[in-house]
Amino acid sequence: MGNAAVPPSVTTLIETLAELPGIGPKSASRLAFYLLRGKSDLALRIGDALKSLVEHTRFCSVCHNVTEADPCPICADPQRDHSLVCVVEEPMDLLALERTEQYRGDYHVLHGALSPLEGIFAEDLRIAELETRIRRSQAEGQRNIREVILATNPTGEGDYTAAYLIQRLKPLEVRVTRLGRGLPMGGDLEYADAITLTRALEARQEM
Amino acid sequence: MGNAAVPPSVTTLIETLAELPGIGPKSASRLAFYLLRGKSDLALRIGDALKSLVEHTRFCSVCHNVTEADPCPICADPQRDHSLVCVVEEPMDLLALERTEQYRGDYHVLHGALSPLEGIFAEDLRIAELETRIRRSQAEGQRNIREVILATNPTGEGDYTAAYLIQRLKPLEVRVTRLGRGLPMGGDLEYADAITLTRALEARQEM
Repeated sequence: MGNAAVPPSVTTLIETLAELPGIGPKSASRLAFYLLRGKSDLALRIGDALKSLVEHTRFCSVCHNVTEADPCPICADPQRDHSLVCVVEEPMDLLALERTEQYRGDYHVLHGALSPLEGIFAEDLRIAELETRIRRSQAEGQRNIREVILATNPTGEGDYTAAYLIQRLKPLEVRVTRLGRGLPMGGDLEYADAITLTRALEARQEM
Repeated sequence: MGNAAVPPSVTTLIETLAELPGIGPKSASRLAFYLLRGKSDLALRIGDALKSLVEHTRFCSVCHNVTEADPCPICADPQRDHSLVCVVEEPMDLLALERTEQYRGDYHVLHGALSPLEGIFAEDLRIAELETRIRRSQAEGQRNIREVILATNPTGEGDYTAAYLIQRLKPLEVRVTRLGRGLPMGGDLEYADAITLTRALEARQEM
C-alpha cells in the first residue's frame, strides 16, 4: 500500500477496525473510506457511542449482564421472580430469552462456555460467582434461589458447560433444570426464534 | 428487544454501527457485544482512530484524495510526473493503482461515478474541479497537464462517466486516454491485481 496515498490516521483506523471479528483488512478499508466521506457525521457518532459505551457500561455485580446501573434493571426489578436464575453464555443469549416475553426470572451470564481446546476453563467464566450467589441467597434466606435453569447453547461446548455446572452445583442442593430439547442441535441460542425458545422453557427438564 | 436487558449506550452503538454499509442490525449487535468484552481496549482505540480521522483528514485541494496535508504528498512530490493525471472514482481505486508501483503521475478523485438512476449527476462529482485544474495548468504553463488517463471502473456507470468526461474535456484540447481493456468486465477496479492493472496502464488507448 503506497504510504503517500494513505494518511496515517486512515491506516490506523483500518488496522483497528480489522481487529473486529468478521472484518478483514479489505472490509476495514471499505468502512474507513465510507466513514471518510463523512455522510451524516457517522464517524463522530460512532466515536461518541464507543466513548459512551466505555464510560457508562459495566457488568452487573449480581448477574454479570451488561448494564449502566448496578445492580442491573433486571436484578433490581421487584416484579421479577428472583428465585429463578437462568444461566446463559453471553448477554446476547439473555436478549433472545427476553424476547420471548415468557421468562420473568433472573439471569446469570457466564461470559463464555468451557472449551479446553481453546483454553477456556471454569476459572475464566463467572462460575464461582454463580456458586457464591446461590450460597449467599440460601444463607440470607431472602431471595432464596430455588431453581437454576441451564440455558447454555445446544453445542458441544454448551453441553459440556451444562454438564460441568450440574456436577459443580450438586453440593448446593438447588434444583437444576435445563432448557428442553426443542432447540435445534448445533445451532446458536441467539438465533432461535421466540416460539422455539418458549417451548424449550416450558419443556425444561429435571437433571 | 427487552429494554431492561440492553443499556441505552449499547443500543445507541448498535444503531450507529448498523448505519455502516454491509453491517445489518445482527452484525452490529455482535460487534457491540464484542467491544463490550473490552479486549485490549479496542473500543477506545477505534474511538480514538475515528476522532483522529475526523480531525486530521481532509481532501487534497488539487486531486481530492484523502490527505492530512494539503496539497497531498502525491501532488507535492517533485519526483512525480505532474503532466499526467489519472482520473479515478474513489480513493481506494487510487490505492489499487499505487500498488502497481508502475504509475508515477498524479491523480484526480471524482468521488463517485455518474448514475442518473441513483441521482448522481456531474455536479455531484469533482468534474468541474478537473476542468479548472487542467485550464489552470494550461494558463500557467507550469505543470502543464498533457494527458488525462480515465481509470473509472469497468462497469456501466464507470463507462458512462468516462464517455461523459471525454465529451466534457474535448474543448480543453488535452490528450485523453483510457485504461486498456485488460480489465475484467463487470469487476471493481479496487479488486484488480497489480499485474492486470499494469497491463491495462501499458495498453491504454487514445480516445
